[in-house]
Amino acid sequence: MRIAILAHEQFPDGAKTAVGVLRYSDHDVVAVLDRERDGERVADHDETLPDAPIVASLSEVDAPIDALLVGISPIGGGFDESWRPDVRAALERGCDVISGLHYFLTEDGEFRDLAEENGCELWDVRRPPDDLGVAEGVADEVEATVVATVGTDCGVGKMTTTLELVAGARERGIDAAFVPTGQTGIVIEGWGYPIDRTVSDFAAGAVEEMILARGNDHDYLFVEGQASVAHPAYSPVSTAILHGSMADELVLCHAAGRERFHGFSQELPPIPEFVDLHESLAASVGGSEVVAGALNTRTIPDDAEAHAAVEAYADELGLPAADPIRQGTGVILDAVL
Amino acid sequence: MRIAILAHEQFPDGAKTAVGVLRYSDHDVVAVLDRERDGERVADHDETLPDAPIVASLSEVDAPIDALLVGISPIGGGFDESWRPDVRAALERGCDVISGLHYFLTEDGEFRDLAEENGCELWDVRRPPDDLGVAEGVADEVEATVVATVGTDCGVGKMTTTLELVAGARERGIDAAFVPTGQTGIVIEGWGYPIDRTVSDFAAGAVEEMILARGNDHDYLFVEGQASVAHPAYSPVSTAILHGSMADELVLCHAAGRERFHGFSQELPPIPEFVDLHESLAASVGGSEVVAGALNTRTIPDDAEAHAAVEAYADELGLPAADPIRQGTGVILDAVL
Repeated sequence: MRIAILAHEQFPDGAKTAVGVLRYSDHDVVAVLDRERDGERVADHDETLPDAPIVASLSEVDAPIDALLVGISPIGGGFDESWRPDVRAALERGCDVISGLHYFLTEDGEFRDLAEENGCELWDVRRPPDDLGVAEGVADEVEATVVATVGTDCGVGKMTTTLELVAGARERGIDAAFVPTGQTGIVIEGWGYPIDRTVSDFAAGAVEEMILARGNDHDYLFVEGQASVAHPAYSPVSTAILHGSMADELVLCHAAGRERFHGFSQELPPIPEFVDLHESLAASVGGSEVVAGALNTRTIPDDAEAHAAVEAYADELGLPAADPIRQGTGVILDAVL
Repeated sequence: MRIAILAHEQFPDGAKTAVGVLRYSDHDVVAVLDRERDGERVADHDETLPDAPIVASLSEVDAPIDALLVGISPIGGGFDESWRPDVRAALERGCDVISGLHYFLTEDGEFRDLAEENGCELWDVRRPPDDLGVAEGVADEVEATVVATVGTDCGVGKMTTTLELVAGARERGIDAAFVPTGQTGIVIEGWGYPIDRTVSDFAAGAVEEMILARGNDHDYLFVEGQASVAHPAYSPVSTAILHGSMADELVLCHAAGRERFHGFSQELPPIPEFVDLHESLAASVGGSEVVAGALNTRTIPDDAEAHAAVEAYADELGLPAADPIRQGTGVILDAVL
């Protein structure tokens, strides 16, 4: 798909979805819309991303595109009315619009009418389907080995680790697939259920449904984790993924230096307790083994210090560990495969 | 409130909500509607319940009532069209209608119109409000001691245990309140959020909001648990309650002889592991201690055998335990208070 990505005033640091799609999706990104960076290029900000021009509005995108992606999500997930001309212009050109906002484009009268008139689709990634069901505890019947990332907290690199593991496994010639559970992953994969937006009773069922849909077509499934089973607010999302996926193996993701849950006063439990906790919780669905750790060392500028932090993390876990971005996924994949 | 309870063809064994409301609510139940038991009385079926006549339809209820409660929930939670005349008659008499069905009466055009014309309210107990938020990890700031029931599985007696604990504590002169988390509990209490129907991201927040709303008005809050943190499908509901309530103390509920999760092929973990699992999971929010067990011995007819089962359960737990119905809550309350 040829896409443009809306990221006004936020590219690249405030545009997690935009950057994730640039880095990991198969889509051909024709342009990024950021009216504050008009005339710059993606490569000016991050040389490791596929390059694309940055323009001020959709009307400046001359190349044909299949879809416009809203690649930012302000706090609260609302729709900024200053984006309306871009979405309108996309629909008038016959492009689909993909959004991960809490505000649903499919409930906006103007967008719905324009989409209908122009034969386009509106895809609200964060809207789970109405027909989800209760998990039946059968995800372990698929042929694939199921590997899930789990975490000590939100924002420690579970999505990135999962995507890097898929890429690394494929480089080794393994038939691996990504199972997304959050909005950015869903946009990258073009498919998936947003488990955080799913009714509690059906959250594990939504995960199970994804495993069953893909689990006999690949040798390995890598399931994107969310939050932490110990998280004061989001643990339901994490347990839904753990029990719904019935993962065979787990990779525990953590961020160097993180001592408290982000935005909360509560301290993280000690690292070794996370291993026991996940394995105890998963025992009721056949058991999962934590086989490796992934440490996000982005906050440590010095390479030697970062490597030392990874070593210390591996010691605490008693398992192999690596920073998937700084060191690659080789060590983790050796433990997983 | 003076209420009639609709329980067609299901009273009493298939009418869990009806029986729960009869036994535990402060409402004055004027009649039960069950067209198969027309002319019988509640006391014919269960002498421990407050007595009331059973009639075939609402038109046979002459006494004034404030509300009609739909006290049954068929598999799937749908609305049986044969109940429509009773709901219609209630609204035409100016009565409110309370329902725990998945089918929302507020989305039924006829009922909505009738409610408006007659100045009545439709209360869909299973519909969470739209403005729930994320938990902030602050439920431990309330003055009350928070006690939650937790379980090894669904249907092991968590609601009953919680309600009996509240009643027992009040008999001891303690200012105790019930915090409901499921439809029957909500109807009994006249207030509360259905955590199983809440979006995963907000499920712990909904529990926290209830604790904050009541926690400074009472000395003890008894929080109704749901399912089990080890459950293959419903664990998100259980972790939401555990983390959202930040309970000080837990009472572990179990059903004698239950070896597998009801409706699933998976075996329950050993009882002592449930104690460790709950305490490990709760460590991140300040810690909870499992202080006692409640065993449902309904399936054991013989008293001596039932008592032996309770003793064996207490041994496995290494904690005091009782069947709250058969033996009362004294032993459990001694551990809790």
